[in-house]
Amino acid sequence: MTDTSALPVSALSEGELLARFTPLLPRGRATLVPTGDDAAVVAAPDGRFVVSTDVLVEDHHFRRGWGTARDVGARAAAQNLADIAAMGAVPTSTVVGLVLPPATPVGWVEDLARGLADVCGPLAVGVDGGDLSAGERLVVAVTVHGDLEGRDPVLRSGARPGDVLAHAGTIGRAAAGLAVLATGTEDDDGAAAAGSGPLATGTEDADGAAGSGTLLAGIADADDDAAAVVAFLRPVPPYAAGPAAADAGASAMMDVSDGLLRDAGRLARASGVEIVLDPLADSLADDLAALAPLAARLGTAPEAWLLTGGEDHGLLATFPAGAPLPEGFRRLGTVRAGGPGVVTAPQDAPHAAAVGWDHFRR
Amino acid sequence: MTDTSALPVSALSEGELLARFTPLLPRGRATLVPTGDDAAVVAAPDGRFVVSTDVLVEDHHFRRGWGTARDVGARAAAQNLADIAAMGAVPTSTVVGLVLPPATPVGWVEDLARGLADVCGPLAVGVDGGDLSAGERLVVAVTVHGDLEGRDPVLRSGARPGDVLAHAGTIGRAAAGLAVLATGTEDDDGAAAAGSGPLATGTEDADGAAGSGTLLAGIADADDDAAAVVAFLRPVPPYAAGPAAADAGASAMMDVSDGLLRDAGRLARASGVEIVLDPLADSLADDLAALAPLAARLGTAPEAWLLTGGEDHGLLATFPAGAPLPEGFRRLGTVRAGGPGVVTAPQDAPHAAAVGWDHFRR
Repeated sequence: MTDTSALPVSALSEGELLARFTPLLPRGRATLVPTGDDAAVVAAPDGRFVVSTDVLVEDHHFRRGWGTARDVGARAAAQNLADIAAMGAVPTSTVVGLVLPPATPVGWVEDLARGLADVCGPLAVGVDGGDLSAGERLVVAVTVHGDLEGRDPVLRSGARPGDVLAHAGTIGRAAAGLAVLATGTEDDDGAAAAGSGPLATGTEDADGAAGSGTLLAGIADADDDAAAVVAFLRPVPPYAAGPAAADAGASAMMDVSDGLLRDAGRLARASGVEIVLDPLADSLADDLAALAPLAARLGTAPEAWLLTGGEDHGLLATFPAGAPLPEGFRRLGTVRAGGPGVVTAPQDAPHAAAVGWDHFRR
Repeated sequence: MTDTSALPVSALSEGELLARFTPLLPRGRATLVPTGDDAAVVAAPDGRFVVSTDVLVEDHHFRRGWGTARDVGARAAAQNLADIAAMGAVPTSTVVGLVLPPATPVGWVEDLARGLADVCGPLAVGVDGGDLSAGERLVVAVTVHGDLEGRDPVLRSGARPGDVLAHAGTIGRAAAGLAVLATGTEDDDGAAAAGSGPLATGTEDADGAAGSGTLLAGIADADDDAAAVVAFLRPVPPYAAGPAAADAGASAMMDVSDGLLRDAGRLARASGVEIVLDPLADSLADDLAALAPLAARLGTAPEAWLLTGGEDHGLLATFPAGAPLPEGFRRLGTVRAGGPGVVTAPQDAPHAAAVGWDHFRR
């Protein structure tokens, strides 16, 4: 095959582009009929499947200038698979729809497929369908599926007074990374950032997970900047913690996509309870300490990242009081009877605004 | 609830918009946990599920000026559910991702949900998940699921020499409708058509399936124009014919989305066979006669609509010779050994170009 990665997608037919894209996608352990026919066939041994869908829009959910296509693909997969884990299920299969501006380099699309594979492959999750369309703006639409393996699904609505609130995964790290990226690109205009050369076709490192190297070399001047940016570009949700929480008797669970305060409020509202967060000095002292130098350098408070930063896609769950928390979970607070949906901020961060991300109104 | 249908979506939070959208979506017979949590849970009694995804982009796949939001929703559902039928499965569940420009009226989004419900509701198919995002251009991303009920999936690759090629559903009608719409709007510029008042919020007719009335009154001057436009805006794939074909021993099947010649070519290529189409005067005489007056008025040939017109989403299948065709299927040709992927055009339309729709290169 000649190297046509730098060609725009408009130089290829849809069939030719699919022929470049599809072989890069992993087949999963549940894949029975892979992508390529009218539809795929996927095993659902439990007799049920879990399904969730998400749409990522360029310049709303990601910027091409902030990372590689491989990062975009990896993040799209990870944030969706977290929704499967949040039900207590194991992910089995994804399908992906792409809207591509005609000038998008073919190599960018291939790198996006590699990013999907970076996340799905090790989990034995198949990318079992894809649709490619032309459009004015890049859109990545991902639908994910999982298997409950006989478990009851864990809903947001099951928290009861007396339960303990706990969390697995990172918290505040993606928000810190976003803050670093926003600082690094604030003099660029968006168009220039989006069209920059080496990023447009990505970087194929020997280490598949480190596609952001080129970018970081340009804007980061400290290890914690780099780690934060990677946390934003390549979140690693604690997938196994979801089924583990279900097995441990979690009464409610959700993934944290819009920030701890806001998502805890959703869980509290769905369950008809109030949540009281522990002092951060008790629950998240290590995170506060780890984020403090970077926050100080950027002139912000690490408490804000911990309480309102989204996109780490950790798992927030409630457990009956006294039950041992499963591995990976740490206590963040308690559930009590009270105004449904109320979240009482930590005593040591009393003025934290309960604000998350809203796609339409901000 | 106050009437806020005319407000732009940017006036509502994502949660408020979801609260308007979600109650309009049907719950399906397979829906176990409906939309509203991190993910939905859907029954898969067969132990497998069939899945397909599709992305529709404004001004590429639909124009707001050509029909109502309800039409867009109905068409998005129908064309995807046809992919499930084409595997020999019955549809069970869909999820939908929407990208909405901030100025989109709330009522437009509600009407789109009603259009999804128009198609999914009567089939007891749930709309079990939705994601709403802001963006510059309207995008509708639909993922559909089905249950094989114990059948083997019918792939594109199973056609064998000696098989009969047959088709269920309409053919050429959507292409005729698109031709009418293109004639009716060719003096408009796209932006004006897309923003036109009454269409922007749709028409809530007592008859749920007739959302296109306002439009047709403006541009159509004959019953066959109107019927053709409805065939394009509201295709009705023969959903039940898919499982029926599988039960009748279909060796290969696919839905016709890009035109008979092109899709027959795909089936022939996947199966490693050649397809010879019967003379249209034998196979599609009624369709030729029905489309002839409209084609004459628009200065085109009905043969082109029959052979290259897509988007009716009928089902193309092959059956062993001598097997009785299931109800709804009519013979279109035969399968023979030969250059894989070759489709021999009908003797009475020898110069028909084997051209379909390509999203990237035309």
